[in-house]
Amino acid sequence: MLELGVCYYPEQWPREKWEEDARRMVELGLAWVRIGEFAWAKIEPRSGEFHWEWLDDAIDVLGRAGLKVILGTPTAAPPKWLIDRHPDILPVDVKGVVRKFGARRHYCFSSRSYRIEAARISEAMAERYGKNAFVHAWQTDNEYGDHDTIYSYSGEAERAFRLWLAERYGTTDELNRAWGTAFWAMNYDSFDEVELPNNLVEEPSPTHIVDFIRFSSDQVKSFNKAQVDIIRKHSPGRPVTHNFMSQNTDFDHYKVGEDIDIASWDVYPMGGLLNGRLSPEDKGRYLRVGDPDQPAFNHDLYRAVGRGRVWVMEQQPGPVNWAAHNQSPADGMVRLWTWLAYAHGVDMVSYFRWRQVPFAQEQFHAGLLLPNSEPDQGYLEVAQVAEEMKRLPKGEARGKAKVAILLDYNSRWATRALPQGRTYSASATALDWYSTVSRLGVDVDFIGQHSDLDGYQLVLAPDLVIANQAFVEKLVASQARVLFGPRSGSKTEDMHIPEGLPPGPLAALVDVSVARVESLPEFHSETVLYGNETYPAGIWRETVRTSEAVLATFEGEYRNGAPALVGNDKARYMAAAARGDLLKKVINDALGWASVEALADLGDLRITRRGKLNFAFNYGKEAADVPAGAGATFHVGARKLGPVDVAIWTE
Amino acid sequence: MLELGVCYYPEQWPREKWEEDARRMVELGLAWVRIGEFAWAKIEPRSGEFHWEWLDDAIDVLGRAGLKVILGTPTAAPPKWLIDRHPDILPVDVKGVVRKFGARRHYCFSSRSYRIEAARISEAMAERYGKNAFVHAWQTDNEYGDHDTIYSYSGEAERAFRLWLAERYGTTDELNRAWGTAFWAMNYDSFDEVELPNNLVEEPSPTHIVDFIRFSSDQVKSFNKAQVDIIRKHSPGRPVTHNFMSQNTDFDHYKVGEDIDIASWDVYPMGGLLNGRLSPEDKGRYLRVGDPDQPAFNHDLYRAVGRGRVWVMEQQPGPVNWAAHNQSPADGMVRLWTWLAYAHGVDMVSYFRWRQVPFAQEQFHAGLLLPNSEPDQGYLEVAQVAEEMKRLPKGEARGKAKVAILLDYNSRWATRALPQGRTYSASATALDWYSTVSRLGVDVDFIGQHSDLDGYQLVLAPDLVIANQAFVEKLVASQARVLFGPRSGSKTEDMHIPEGLPPGPLAALVDVSVARVESLPEFHSETVLYGNETYPAGIWRETVRTSEAVLATFEGEYRNGAPALVGNDKARYMAAAARGDLLKKVINDALGWASVEALADLGDLRITRRGKLNFAFNYGKEAADVPAGAGATFHVGARKLGPVDVAIWTE
Amino acid sequence: MLELGVCYYPEQWPREKWEEDARRMVELGLAWVRIGEFAWAKIEPRSGEFHWEWLDDAIDVLGRAGLKVILGTPTAAPPKWLIDRHPDILPVDVKGVVRKFGARRHYCFSSRSYRIEAARISEAMAERYGKNAFVHAWQTDNEYGDHDTIYSYSGEAERAFRLWLAERYGTTDELNRAWGTAFWAMNYDSFDEVELPNNLVEEPSPTHIVDFIRFSSDQVKSFNKAQVDIIRKHSPGRPVTHNFMSQNTDFDHYKVGEDIDIASWDVYPMGGLLNGRLSPEDKGRYLRVGDPDQPAFNHDLYRAVGRGRVWVMEQQPGPVNWAAHNQSPADGMVRLWTWLAYAHGVDMVSYFRWRQVPFAQEQFHAGLLLPNSEPDQGYLEVAQVAEEMKRLPKGEARGKAKVAILLDYNSRWATRALPQGRTYSASATALDWYSTVSRLGVDVDFIGQHSDLDGYQLVLAPDLVIANQAFVEKLVASQARVLFGPRSGSKTEDMHIPEGLPPGPLAALVDVSVARVESLPEFHSETVLYGNETYPAGIWRETVRTSEAVLATFEGEYRNGAPALVGNDKARYMAAAARGDLLKKVINDALGWASVEALADLGDLRITRRGKLNFAFNYGKEAADVPAGAGATFHVGARKLGPVDVAIWTE
Repeated sequence: MLELGVCYYPEQWPREKWEEDARRMVELGLAWVRIGEFAWAKIEPRSGEFHWEWLDDAIDVLGRAGLKVILGTPTAAPPKWLIDRHPDILPVDVKGVVRKFGARRHYCFSSRSYRIEAARISEAMAERYGKNAFVHAWQTDNEYGDHDTIYSYSGEAERAFRLWLAERYGTTDELNRAWGTAFWAMNYDSFDEVELPNNLVEEPSPTHIVDFIRFSSDQVKSFNKAQVDIIRKHSPGRPVTHNFMSQNTDFDHYKVGEDIDIASWDVYPMGGLLNGRLSPEDKGRYLRVGDPDQPAFNHDLYRAVGRGRVWVMEQQPGPVNWAAHNQSPADGMVRLWTWLAYAHGVDMVSYFRWRQVPFAQEQFHAGLLLPNSEPDQGYLEVAQVAEEMKRLPKGEARGKAKVAILLDYNSRWATRALPQGRTYSASATALDWYSTVSRLGVDVDFIGQHSDLDGYQLVLAPDLVIANQAFVEKLVASQARVLFGPRSGSKTEDMHIPEGLPPGPLAALVDVSVARVESLPEFHSETVLYGNETYPAGIWRETVRTSEAVLATFEGEYRNGAPALVGNDKARYMAAAARGDLLKKVINDALGWASVEALADLGDLRITRRGKLNFAFNYGKEAADVPAGAGATFHVGARKLGPVDVAIWTE
Repeated sequence: MLELGVCYYPEQWPREKWEEDARRMVELGLAWVRIGEFAWAKIEPRSGEFHWEWLDDAIDVLGRAGLKVILGTPTAAPPKWLIDRHPDILPVDVKGVVRKFGARRHYCFSSRSYRIEAARISEAMAERYGKNAFVHAWQTDNEYGDHDTIYSYSGEAERAFRLWLAERYGTTDELNRAWGTAFWAMNYDSFDEVELPNNLVEEPSPTHIVDFIRFSSDQVKSFNKAQVDIIRKHSPGRPVTHNFMSQNTDFDHYKVGEDIDIASWDVYPMGGLLNGRLSPEDKGRYLRVGDPDQPAFNHDLYRAVGRGRVWVMEQQPGPVNWAAHNQSPADGMVRLWTWLAYAHGVDMVSYFRWRQVPFAQEQFHAGLLLPNSEPDQGYLEVAQVAEEMKRLPKGEARGKAKVAILLDYNSRWATRALPQGRTYSASATALDWYSTVSRLGVDVDFIGQHSDLDGYQLVLAPDLVIANQAFVEKLVASQARVLFGPRSGSKTEDMHIPEGLPPGPLAALVDVSVARVESLPEFHSETVLYGNETYPAGIWRETVRTSEAVLATFEGEYRNGAPALVGNDKARYMAAAARGDLLKKVINDALGWASVEALADLGDLRITRRGKLNFAFNYGKEAADVPAGAGATFHVGARKLGPVDVAIWTE
Repeated sequence: MLELGVCYYPEQWPREKWEEDARRMVELGLAWVRIGEFAWAKIEPRSGEFHWEWLDDAIDVLGRAGLKVILGTPTAAPPKWLIDRHPDILPVDVKGVVRKFGARRHYCFSSRSYRIEAARISEAMAERYGKNAFVHAWQTDNEYGDHDTIYSYSGEAERAFRLWLAERYGTTDELNRAWGTAFWAMNYDSFDEVELPNNLVEEPSPTHIVDFIRFSSDQVKSFNKAQVDIIRKHSPGRPVTHNFMSQNTDFDHYKVGEDIDIASWDVYPMGGLLNGRLSPEDKGRYLRVGDPDQPAFNHDLYRAVGRGRVWVMEQQPGPVNWAAHNQSPADGMVRLWTWLAYAHGVDMVSYFRWRQVPFAQEQFHAGLLLPNSEPDQGYLEVAQVAEEMKRLPKGEARGKAKVAILLDYNSRWATRALPQGRTYSASATALDWYSTVSRLGVDVDFIGQHSDLDGYQLVLAPDLVIANQAFVEKLVASQARVLFGPRSGSKTEDMHIPEGLPPGPLAALVDVSVARVESLPEFHSETVLYGNETYPAGIWRETVRTSEAVLATFEGEYRNGAPALVGNDKARYMAAAARGDLLKKVINDALGWASVEALADLGDLRITRRGKLNFAFNYGKEAADVPAGAGATFHVGARKLGPVDVAIWTE
């Protein structure tokens, strides 16, 4: 069953409002309330001087009203006195400039002082509230990676990076080999000679870059794990979560996910729309509903990060404040997004925030209530969801899909370190593939290379640049068919071209050898002949040699007839970067090949399933017919589905 | 009567040229000459070693030729020896980098050393020339704010900012409340903890930003006032001016204006054209005449800053050197701009500069003379103006308009600190409103919230974000009707959302409550129905609740029928950001509502009045008929007005 | 005869591969191999600890296989231990940030430590290999100027700049005069007061900028010369070269060229295509062949730099890694580029690189071999060239052209220091002029102001901003007619406007006086009437006074009928910045005027001659007829020339 919640900041409101707020939350149907994650300076306004009384009180008020508290460790915002005592806490940006106090996330993950201080405040909090009857869950810190805060170019980071490299490579000879320092006389004789990869004359070795990203990712993991361990010690049995940010790939979310009980993420679909992958025309069409696939993509991704358990910690309740343009969601979208989350396996949706705050940075960010405590549009929609929920059968689980999409953080870092073409975006590619499958009405799971492949009939690997041997073996052993995008297997773990050319170890699945790659400018497309149709294909093209069947070819002046899609019974490899109709054709064929049932292109409709519940969402401007069976029972909505509307039925 | 003048730099030319230059100036009809404002290093080439002789001589030569000297304090360009002695004079940019010597304006307004030094040189100069018979006026410094020099992020600025905050808030509790530091644990325990708002991880509190702007503005005021006080002590009876820059809003010009006798400004209409508010098509049409409303806007604005007295200290005489593209003004524009200035209340127009300089930074900046002393085009046009002037009746004063436009610096800073949408520009908005009124042939005054409202029938408030109570009361008490743009009253002085929602105190005038705002991307427009017509309206949209009459509504998918313009007999509030035809409709109706007589849309013609003189200016490519009465007497030009031409008549 | 070569890095490959690699190089028809230029850290891994054995061995293996070795001094990549010992080696960027170790070119040309160290390693290398029988030539350093490395804003550079200024000006009075420091109180009292022209509030004096560029250029010259002197001492009789980068104008290539025996350059035509001067449509058409005139332009330019001797040290063999988009060259382009080089006087073409390297920064850069040592496309084309070469008559020399284009580095720096309009590009202008001549089938030489003018019938001077008196006298004395572009003669050596207005000394050739200049935005064009046709002309327009014949005029609203092209029997001056059809008309007429025979517009074909050999290159998508005489003998190709193909014939 879907539970609802809200983010609340008692420290920002007069004590007089708390009780009424709590009462109204419960009245609205909320079960959870997240608090505390920016409250360090209120808890400990001066070093060692703790003021728990207000937080005791707040938890008590909220708990007694019937709410389950999610308590956040306040480490995303260290207080000024702490910074002044330990200036090494501050992160340093890529230009070498210290990033100052005055907002949030002003800390370097490698600061030894901050590790100690973050543990100290987390322990103090966990000790005090670990067994509090009203505290039902914990959140560590807040939005790791927000505002480009994973990478710090500080002295502390440099020191830690050297230790990490020594650990990884053992000897500088091994580092020199991996980084290829013979290339430009870049040899290191000691790990202490290595510097951080910023402010260079030219690009550093891509292995230098990728290792710095890996190091930075590991720093996040260990920083987070330290807090989780403290919480678990003092608060056994309460789940621990962290609220991730959609599509952030600055660190390995799977690895941080290993250490927590539930992955949660923050759902703000409007902000990213305008910079995203869509055509200008689609940006106009979806202006007030957002990219129809971006939230679903992330629900599915974070379900994988949370190993099945996923929450929404912050759901956009109206316009936000942080994008270049902050258009309002259409009325109805808050409800739609809530049901979408549930459909994709989310068990708790918490809205950000209870009441729009009239001061400080986020004044233009909507809440469920207006600043004067009147209900805003989001409030009304939450009330509707709470009502509708009562009509649904309980206990439905999302279950496992037949199709898996691989998202590999290490591979993302590889294309970041050696992009080779500005038009190529791994993130847009993955979302394109996801969107294409979704428009065909097929449910999807995300996997990493560590994942179990049991039960999947089709694995989609749009950008598996660095394939590890274990994963290749799992693929070989599995029943799944697999479709690889271009660039697959093109780098080793050391960021080298594999011996025997790309796709390296994937050649065990499909006999391909990539002899040339090229990246193409926006204005140019190649032509691909697939079946009897031709399609434009830009961005990236490979020249491959293969003994496999050629399913599609490039046409035109340059290497006419060269393979564009090749494969065998087990695996297919794309030498083109398909989008649009070509991608639809490739994926539709792959679904058929893998015996996965698909629907006709759904257009602006999206269909998904949670257990025996079927969900339809209409992102379009016209009413549409839901593809429900003749005898379907509609719990929410109806067969004819209007714009910005939701239908839920059982067959 | 219009007097003419010129900017001259005797220190840049051989002594042999001075006398002939002076003679030719007088011959041309010039009465004033500005000198000295970049001459510090010539006056005091080494610390304490003064060389007045050349300046004595220059003033003497110019004065004896019959010119009135405006003497500039030379503080816009401190010499190298001074910088080397007091490196703390140098300003620091927003990235934290010291801005070096080698051009001009290389000082931080908060530098204590520089305050002392600027007073020292000003006093030395005022003592020597304060009672000189040829020195008729003074200019302080030069173009405050040029090249982004109001904000310095130096240690000196930080120190002064802390003192300013202590003065403003008294206690850190009060600062914490105003800045909303409870938001992200940003509390301060001491004013000495506060830093300047640059190089942060994320945006600081908007109140932090606005307070830094207010502080910086106050630094300009006190820096300027120190010089004015010195000059007045030594040179009683001579007016003091400062030459402002068009539409600079980095500091409060009204406040600096309080301390001087005459506001002057520097008129360079070509440079800003290409980056301005106009459509690409209009940029093409106006390529060689500039935005027809930008110079008039600023004449009217600086007339308010100078409390009725306004000069042009630097009038563009041909192409300039500093824009991305420096097209030539059409032949005739120097004359047109001169008459435009006079029409808008300017009493003295001084051209920049006498002769194009063949060395250093501004070689491509035209003068009245070519580098070889031949007359350039501007010279010929000035001669024509001097001739035409003789035909005009004397003593006409601009008088007071019936319509006032409010320009509030504090409000500008509010939208800068919290823009919320990249398409919204307060500066373009104000100019759009001004232009719309001007195209209807209606004269306008600018006002601030401090201004007297007597006699105005209509107040236009395109962007009064922070409305103060006293101004609201004046409005209520006045006879004026008032039209508010969106965002009006949306912030308190503390940069908070007003209790009871925006427009806060303005609700006393029009019963509106803004429940939601949204900013829109370039490519999207909403539709507004006003009367029987629909209009596109982009950029910004508000959802308002009101008990007032709804004069226009939004149409379309999103909140169809919601109010777009509401009002009563006293005040109207726009929930849309109108431009183009919608703005024309709104303003035209408001003029009628306020019983202000308007003409039909003048297109490329502009009409204004100074006393009984009527002026017409043709910015178009076709001749046009001037709307003069049948019995009009034309002093300059004729009823049929060619392109780039001027007509002056009395009815 | 054309010799072929390759760039090889024995230090990057296992010893086992060397012998086979050498054997295959010879087999392919290669005669030369360049090695060593990034090998410092392998040669001297720790201070004073030299490991020559591997390099002895490599030279031996290559030499004994029959290859002539070009040995590079390794100073483009100082090792880490050296940087750590002498941190002052590191360059400082324009923002004042130290540029760190980790790639290459991390040195400041003014570092005294580095001057000593670079001499030390060069001497060690020259001593050891100077008389080695297999070492046939030397290269100094590598690609001076790559990644913006000519200008360093370090303390070392500041110190050296002051000395350079003292040398140039003798007294600060003279510097103050030249820089025009009277302008904004910028006077200097001592050379030690002068700072580098970065991080200023506003632009510094243009003379300050240009002097810093001149100084930086001189630093490159003296740095290079020190190495050349060392090499010549130890390795007499072996030619010394440096590999320049196409169209880099950060330093004076002629001056560096004076000190070497052969100029070489690095030919990468694809990378610059997309940012270049071409229309979007042409960028599409030439996507896989590159700008047809850019490589030829540079062959001709570097032939002048090398005083007749020019090599290609690095020829692109396939896609590269460093551009925003790295499309593949069409199959056949490597062959085409090779023949193009030969046709333009190049005597040796060396490909970069032998084998694609699977690690470090340039993994995506093609080689003649794939990483697994299979031949890539380039290899096959080199084999074809080697075969075709055998069919050609030997000993043909390029000879002197009838048309010379002037490229003056000092003038380029003048427009860089005072651009005056963003649409004006001296580099695009020069290439446009070159391209226009080339499309008319006319061969061209490049000249500097130092060059001998004997034998030229037409000198084209698209951007001679600073004309020196000696050159003007040579022009006057020569038989050549001359066509000047706008801006010609517009600055003196001191970066002043000439007395008596531009074109200063050029008025001796054509009686013109420039009274006004203006720069125009992209969207606006003026109209020029030339003959009976009108043409659009944007970017730049001048108003000139002249007693010469007016050959073309401006039409339209602004100064209708003003001269656009004027001239006499000796010289013509353009007051418009012509491109496209207007430029073709101007140049075609100038060729006729100078009695230079031209062909009809060749479209995508290019024709050039080396001795009695005629060459045709087809950059188009259609076959074309080569304009060969009826009795022509085709050595390569045929009269009907397909796309991406080459014909070589004698008449």
